[in-house]
Amino acid sequence: MEITLAQAAARLRQMEDVGILVHENPDGDCIGSGYALLLALRALGKRARVLCSDPIPEKFRPYLPEEGEAFEPAHYVSVDTATPALLGRYGDLAEKVEVCIDHHPSNSSYARETVVQPEAAAVCEMIFSLVEILGVSCTRPVATCLYIGLITDTGCFQFSNTTAHTHRVAAALMEQGVDYATLNRLFFSTKSRARLRIEKCALENLEFFEGDKLAITAITLAMKAAAGADDGDLEGVTPIPRQIEGVEIGVTLREKAPDSWRVSVRTNSIINAAEVCAQFGGGGHVRAAGCRMEGPLPQVKAALVEVCAQYLRR
Amino acid sequence: MEITLAQAAARLRQMEDVGILVHENPDGDCIGSGYALLLALRALGKRARVLCSDPIPEKFRPYLPEEGEAFEPAHYVSVDTATPALLGRYGDLAEKVEVCIDHHPSNSSYARETVVQPEAAAVCEMIFSLVEILGVSCTRPVATCLYIGLITDTGCFQFSNTTAHTHRVAAALMEQGVDYATLNRLFFSTKSRARLRIEKCALENLEFFEGDKLAITAITLAMKAAAGADDGDLEGVTPIPRQIEGVEIGVTLREKAPDSWRVSVRTNSIINAAEVCAQFGGGGHVRAAGCRMEGPLPQVKAALVEVCAQYLRR
Repeated sequence: MEITLAQAAARLRQMEDVGILVHENPDGDCIGSGYALLLALRALGKRARVLCSDPIPEKFRPYLPEEGEAFEPAHYVSVDTATPALLGRYGDLAEKVEVCIDHHPSNSSYARETVVQPEAAAVCEMIFSLVEILGVSCTRPVATCLYIGLITDTGCFQFSNTTAHTHRVAAALMEQGVDYATLNRLFFSTKSRARLRIEKCALENLEFFEGDKLAITAITLAMKAAAGADDGDLEGVTPIPRQIEGVEIGVTLREKAPDSWRVSVRTNSIINAAEVCAQFGGGGHVRAAGCRMEGPLPQVKAALVEVCAQYLRR
Repeated sequence: MEITLAQAAARLRQMEDVGILVHENPDGDCIGSGYALLLALRALGKRARVLCSDPIPEKFRPYLPEEGEAFEPAHYVSVDTATPALLGRYGDLAEKVEVCIDHHPSNSSYARETVVQPEAAAVCEMIFSLVEILGVSCTRPVATCLYIGLITDTGCFQFSNTTAHTHRVAAALMEQGVDYATLNRLFFSTKSRARLRIEKCALENLEFFEGDKLAITAITLAMKAAAGADDGDLEGVTPIPRQIEGVEIGVTLREKAPDSWRVSVRTNSIINAAEVCAQFGGGGHVRAAGCRMEGPLPQVKAALVEVCAQYLRR
């Protein structure tokens, strides 16, 4: 059932011992919204934990609250998680999720009650409002979590999902003393040497199709190992193909297991990336979507080129 | 004499046929504030022209108003221009400048009357207020000029000069229908294929010294030619060495003529880049400075490593 943020706030008030589920391969927005909600619930005197199928990447740690004591949640909520599959090893808990707070239009309504605001650039915008509705103070730690979600989901206010409201939320968060310049540098202007090595691979493997409107690059397990790169380093590669002058669709293939590929599709202004990925059983947003594909690289690439070409020729 | 923005607005109201001076090597902020002011003055029924010692780069053109008929200005104002020297070939007009609107604390007060707001991330923030004071509508073309200034002077809201006010101005501008996603992409996420080729060269040539605290890369004339890169493409390479995790000094050498090098030094948090460059007759800011060096690459590099090592070991 669809509910409003105010109704979600009312439900949260009645919960004790809350497990906050976030999606696997956690990004800044699910981490930021998860931990901001944790802090808000703690401020209301409740126990709360964030549960994620994968470890929270190290670079977020200095900006997040302590985990606190372990406990068995009596209630579950989820943030930024469109489907049960995205809960990874916590997938079994999907049916126990009472409230889901999300901004993906593709949300499968798996939770008992769901708030979806597709116009929110980041779920952190929604949590900002929720914190206000809950009457909890948006302290510096809360604001820091929320700011991380804003900048990571908008590419530091660059992407088309950014709205005037996003900027007003950023202004309010900055007034709480968020160390925004350090965070911006950490997320947008600091690269590990492994990341540079993998970027070089990505540049070397760039291929162009359809009159240079489609650019595809691939990172194999062997390249990843040779570069000493981790998944975070690889994440930094996905924007590269779309950035090239004249490119409309930028695709990055990352080999997750032998001949098993995580495909990231980014588009500039015409093509719906979610539609492209839906052809392969995936989904996402209009300008950024993903899917999984199986098979040898040339075969996977050919299938992608064929589908992308259909969209580009329309 | 120091005046307020309201006083500046009063002066502008009394002027006809206004020449708006901006600094040489024009950037997004002086262009954006110059043309936004031009539009505001035209909306008040006045003639206005922007005067710049150098051509306005092509990529700005689609977002700027038409030049309109030529005329001999009866009054001069300047924006974002701290000293007469920065007016280039219009330097002689400095003594005729009646009002200067600027955010550089180093402004030399060359104008008859000056408004300086060092807390403004961009002069465009000041022009946004000025437009309001003048009672002129902040139309989409005005908002577009101002948004360009905001994003180019703050690295799209990344740099430490960004304030909550900057974000609120951005929100107001976006509500006027600025095509912000296209502008952000144009200025921050579009790379020519030549630029990618030269970035790959820069990554291949990266060398580390002093326990990886010093990173140096070099672009030779031969590489530039092979990549088909222009000076703008090369400009994009200078931030790379400093971005690397653990690096304190990032140096980029660009060969301008055989064995003649333009050296760009970028530092992160400890070393004064201007001091380093002063050792070679150059200068600049604390975190970004430059100098020229002559000689074969290995020799030039060795000299740089020696000096940088002295600073890093202090």
